[in-house]
Amino acid sequence: MFEFTITAKNARARAGVFTTPHGDLITPVFAPVGTQATVKTLTPSQVKDLGATLVLSNTYHLYLRPGDDVVAGLGGLHRFMRWPHPLLTDSGGFQVFSLAQTRHIDDEGVTFKSHIDGSTHRFTPQRSIRIQENLGADIIMAFDECSDPNDHEYSKLAMERTHRWAEICVKAKRRGDQALFGIVQGGVQEDLRTASAKFIASLDTPGIAIGGLSVGETKEEMHAMLDVMEPYLPENKPRYLMGVGTPEDLINGVLRGVDIFDCVLPTRLARHHSAFSPEGRLNLMNTTFARDERPVDETCDCYTCKTFTRAYIRHLIVAKELLAGTLISIHNLRALIRLMEEIRIYIVNGTFEEKVSLLLDQWKNNANRQMVNE
Amino acid sequence: MFEFTITAKNARARAGVFTTPHGDLITPVFAPVGTQATVKTLTPSQVKDLGATLVLSNTYHLYLRPGDDVVAGLGGLHRFMRWPHPLLTDSGGFQVFSLAQTRHIDDEGVTFKSHIDGSTHRFTPQRSIRIQENLGADIIMAFDECSDPNDHEYSKLAMERTHRWAEICVKAKRRGDQALFGIVQGGVQEDLRTASAKFIASLDTPGIAIGGLSVGETKEEMHAMLDVMEPYLPENKPRYLMGVGTPEDLINGVLRGVDIFDCVLPTRLARHHSAFSPEGRLNLMNTTFARDERPVDETCDCYTCKTFTRAYIRHLIVAKELLAGTLISIHNLRALIRLMEEIRIYIVNGTFEEKVSLLLDQWKNNANRQMVNE
Repeated sequence: MFEFTITAKNARARAGVFTTPHGDLITPVFAPVGTQATVKTLTPSQVKDLGATLVLSNTYHLYLRPGDDVVAGLGGLHRFMRWPHPLLTDSGGFQVFSLAQTRHIDDEGVTFKSHIDGSTHRFTPQRSIRIQENLGADIIMAFDECSDPNDHEYSKLAMERTHRWAEICVKAKRRGDQALFGIVQGGVQEDLRTASAKFIASLDTPGIAIGGLSVGETKEEMHAMLDVMEPYLPENKPRYLMGVGTPEDLINGVLRGVDIFDCVLPTRLARHHSAFSPEGRLNLMNTTFARDERPVDETCDCYTCKTFTRAYIRHLIVAKELLAGTLISIHNLRALIRLMEEIRIYIVNGTFEEKVSLLLDQWKNNANRQMVNE
Repeated sequence: MFEFTITAKNARARAGVFTTPHGDLITPVFAPVGTQATVKTLTPSQVKDLGATLVLSNTYHLYLRPGDDVVAGLGGLHRFMRWPHPLLTDSGGFQVFSLAQTRHIDDEGVTFKSHIDGSTHRFTPQRSIRIQENLGADIIMAFDECSDPNDHEYSKLAMERTHRWAEICVKAKRRGDQALFGIVQGGVQEDLRTASAKFIASLDTPGIAIGGLSVGETKEEMHAMLDVMEPYLPENKPRYLMGVGTPEDLINGVLRGVDIFDCVLPTRLARHHSAFSPEGRLNLMNTTFARDERPVDETCDCYTCKTFTRAYIRHLIVAKELLAGTLISIHNLRALIRLMEEIRIYIVNGTFEEKVSLLLDQWKNNANRQMVNE
């Protein structure tokens, strides 16, 4: 279980297979986000039809609603949300720091108030693992602290706490059918990122997550950090770049040795009527689409693009019909999943490196980043 | 085209086939409502999977948004909403009377203000037909005036206007690939209903619609009106009871010779978390369902009931996830479509009459009516 086999390499880019209790995960892979045990507006059947293989869900949200004990009592998250394929949960750390109110961090954990009803809760590394064991995802995360990337002093403190907490998580873990990933932190400081990569690698977890990026730093800083860490990340373990990202970020991530990505961007853009396309992001509410008989993207193979016109989707948006969000979500998610399928073919063919500039050019008008918490 | 063949009868109940340019329509049939060229929250693929064969769309809404000329320019309603099966449009009359602001009725038509932006518009019988020809549904409706059913004087006036307008509609119609149905009016007055049924039957339209019921009268009054009209409705033409209704109404309608029904009830209930079930309507937001592992209806064959627990749907509702509305819509629509399939089998077997009391008993806790405009 949890073996990672690299089937092809192209410079630092890797095509691999990660075995999980719910099936083999083909990498590189983009995971749709199902924050509250649902990829927003889509049935699991529609998510599967996108070619999705891995779905991420959020520990913080599920702990608050419906409660991890409820999910456990109903047979775990796979059974609860009817996703019989690989699942990943985060540790709850990121949401505690970004969503919860009046949090207090100490060396043992975080006390916070729920963003829903203001009730007080406490997460510790042990508690995060226990919740994630109740949820039962295939891949789970160590509890970490995400710092302001440009604050060196705080980044060092948060990194050290993340390291201690990672050790506690490794010891606290009881289930044998879940892969716990340690998380590298360290802001945008080369020395911290190097130290953190070395330390997390030393814990010998079945995979390594990279946290604290795509949180406000520049693209150049993110790329520099990926370059700095890469030599210290074990070759034979999957690497997961958390909460990333745009099409451009995925291309740049794979180029720097990343295997797993997740982001709310495709579904969040969909709710704001924005669709990936070869022409750049389209705001489908725009009046120019009122009589446009073309699909969102003529090159796309998704249900939305094979079935509907831009004019129809624009009508749904203007008429405030929720189906608009569903149809654009299908397209945006398929666009990133298809990009990853394309990249994997290039890696296997040995042509990825030479295709990178072409891919970046194709996607250059879809590059704007948005906030990643949902 | 538009031949109606009765394949079996059981007292007044009929099982038939109505031929349309987009395929044979097996009756009795319940049509989901796609007000704005979409059955709310469902893809056409999901609607088809319910066993739906006929979808209704609203002329008033599509005239205002996106405009019938836009729909015509995009190839008509079938192509616009990607529903390649039979479609029905109403005349716009009911919505003008129930939704539009400050309407003024005269003998030639109705001037009204849009409920969206207050702009002024005018519908006449000719205009309604022209709009419905632009939309291009298989079954279209004569422009009618719906009265307060208990006001005899106004009901007589509205009925007479409806008759004159029906004659104008028959003359105004140009397309040969659309079946225009005249509409019987007359409130809850036996003499008016008899006169209206006779008059509309005399127009020899390929089908007859029954309007002005399920608008505030009692169930007994509705049944009495159906009984009074039935002898005057041509045997060999389909009869469409507009905007009806609850499961109980469908059973009682078929029993009184009705072939076609539509209602927003299943999708509207879904948006209010309410699901049909053998136990009666379930409010799935109720805390008693928090750990309920059963499907909404153990006897149901829909995607929702075959896949999800009540606990999961309740979680989606509490977490304000739109998927809840989609899943309950799938179940509620399938419940009524399945009821019609069951009824048709009984008619063909010759057992419908003896099953009626059993059916009414099964559905007795799902009988509450709601307003029917959406």
